[in-house]
Amino acid sequence: MTERVSDIGEFGLIRRINDLVNREGIQSEQVTLGIGDDTAAFLPRLGYELLITCDCIVEGRHYLPEYIHPSDLGRRAMVVNISDIGAMGGKPLYALISLGLKAETSVQYVEEIYRGFLLELNPFGASIIGGNITKSGNGMFIDITLVGEVEQGKAVRRSGARPGDVILVTGYPGQSAAGLQLLLHEPEDSKIKEHPLVRIYNIPSHRAKLGEAIAQTGCASAMIDTSDGFLGDLGHICEESRVGAELFKERLPISKPLQEAALKLHRDPYDFFLGESDDYELIITCRPQDVDRIRSSVSQCCPVSLAEVGRITGDTGEIFLLLSDGTKQPVKPSGWDHFRKDHGQ
Amino acid sequence: MTERVSDIGEFGLIRRINDLVNREGIQSEQVTLGIGDDTAAFLPRLGYELLITCDCIVEGRHYLPEYIHPSDLGRRAMVVNISDIGAMGGKPLYALISLGLKAETSVQYVEEIYRGFLLELNPFGASIIGGNITKSGNGMFIDITLVGEVEQGKAVRRSGARPGDVILVTGYPGQSAAGLQLLLHEPEDSKIKEHPLVRIYNIPSHRAKLGEAIAQTGCASAMIDTSDGFLGDLGHICEESRVGAELFKERLPISKPLQEAALKLHRDPYDFFLGESDDYELIITCRPQDVDRIRSSVSQCCPVSLAEVGRITGDTGEIFLLLSDGTKQPVKPSGWDHFRKDHGQ
Repeated sequence: MTERVSDIGEFGLIRRINDLVNREGIQSEQVTLGIGDDTAAFLPRLGYELLITCDCIVEGRHYLPEYIHPSDLGRRAMVVNISDIGAMGGKPLYALISLGLKAETSVQYVEEIYRGFLLELNPFGASIIGGNITKSGNGMFIDITLVGEVEQGKAVRRSGARPGDVILVTGYPGQSAAGLQLLLHEPEDSKIKEHPLVRIYNIPSHRAKLGEAIAQTGCASAMIDTSDGFLGDLGHICEESRVGAELFKERLPISKPLQEAALKLHRDPYDFFLGESDDYELIITCRPQDVDRIRSSVSQCCPVSLAEVGRITGDTGEIFLLLSDGTKQPVKPSGWDHFRKDHGQ
Repeated sequence: MTERVSDIGEFGLIRRINDLVNREGIQSEQVTLGIGDDTAAFLPRLGYELLITCDCIVEGRHYLPEYIHPSDLGRRAMVVNISDIGAMGGKPLYALISLGLKAETSVQYVEEIYRGFLLELNPFGASIIGGNITKSGNGMFIDITLVGEVEQGKAVRRSGARPGDVILVTGYPGQSAAGLQLLLHEPEDSKIKEHPLVRIYNIPSHRAKLGEAIAQTGCASAMIDTSDGFLGDLGHICEESRVGAELFKERLPISKPLQEAALKLHRDPYDFFLGESDDYELIITCRPQDVDRIRSSVSQCCPVSLAEVGRITGDTGEIFLLLSDGTKQPVKPSGWDHFRKDHGQ
């Protein structure tokens, strides 16, 4: 018989989670008190700033429970946060997990979610040190707070881009958004979960190690992860840095699988690239003379492509797409604000 | 016309919150990066451990929106977390706020919630440094992560109680639970919100400054806040310390308003005292010879009553109520686990 959360209760579930975390997670000497007291406690390291971020994913809104394995769901929720720490140039250390659960959820389902968290945390030697469990009547949610560290003064912000800087992007943004559309387009196809773009949507990767390596060069003037889509996040850099941007359309890295998926879905692949997509790639800006140092830090870290796609301008808040015929097309981030009335979601 | 969250969107709302926090909140020099980047960042202090906790309150489950002003709701959500930091002997520093909001929520309602957060944080010089906003289809939630600090080695855990230790409790537990029942009992009475016990339920207080003062004595063997009710939290101390407890029934501090409310509700006031109630008082254990030092630290800190209600025993996990006629009655925490099937909520 399936064991439900309601069978073992909140405190029974906390004990089971604690056992799993102790068995399969990493123990850190800096943690003086883990799960099970009023708070967790840890000793910070001298010479480091602490980074802290939280991100929440909600059932039916950020994921479709029928299409994602709970372990992948855990990975997905953790990746979102790891990516934010990485986009500052930091290293993840400690996670707190706040879960909103339905009473009928199986204990095994919750344990699998935690296995997903640990799959993402263990490679960094990072650990789960606390959290909270709440009964949620309608729809589950997973809210993670992640603490990281970065050498004092090495954090890369959104606000440092300057006119003349080059705009770089890792990997192939837009693939995750196309994966989601494939999933919604053919929900009855049992093999759809195995499609490479659907896998990218379900288990997004992050560039946290790369972010740390790039920050170490001291050459990045601004950095952000593409959690609000490429244009949305370039827009954040422009807003915080009070600059504008020009993008060379033909240099935007559109992957072959994205081209094929767009063809199948009768969509423009650039819409996927520029719009909202959970790819968690990095946008980096730097002076033109620093591009080589950043390229070299990337190639020493991992086999990820790095494309030079545009430049920062002084036209505050304006983003243009430069076409191959020489024309200039203004573009605006769209589709990345879930609350706006004009947004479909 | 009422301005809704859907009118200004997620990023518009973040800007408004940022403005409010900058205008009405405290700025800390240790914070190197606040709201508006991938993460927040701060410099920890040498010689201090960092404490971290999160707690979530859900509409309809932890609060009744029609009976609570949004500013009081914010205070309530923050108090829960401040109380946890205080129960370790720590001082609150930085909060991250994760909100699940409905699109039709008014911007003013959200701003009032933030005013409530600041009302509780400002007296500590603590600040809001980050967060996340999610669209939640069904029911709002407020999930807060609070970071605090405590001198290295001074944190008071749940696990240090030893047989022979005295059990102390601050204030008058059970009043909040009675306040909630009064609210549910007479929902049509417009004056009910002004009843002192209903106010205690709606805007619970915390004993964080007291917890810090008690920790400084170095005399408390264990400490916890009564967020799961008096028996529930004494049970946590017993479990983590592997001990038992005996309580002198006639010494349990039942306030006059609680006695009167219990009479009106045809309930036993001891049920309110022992059961689940959001009072956020402190349970402290210490050696008998240390009681005076703790009493003196309490009286120097604030005018709060401190009752000696029992003693720790070696009967692991067993809690008894000692009646005035000399009989001994076993008691078990009940009603404090929201997921259990046998629980009414």
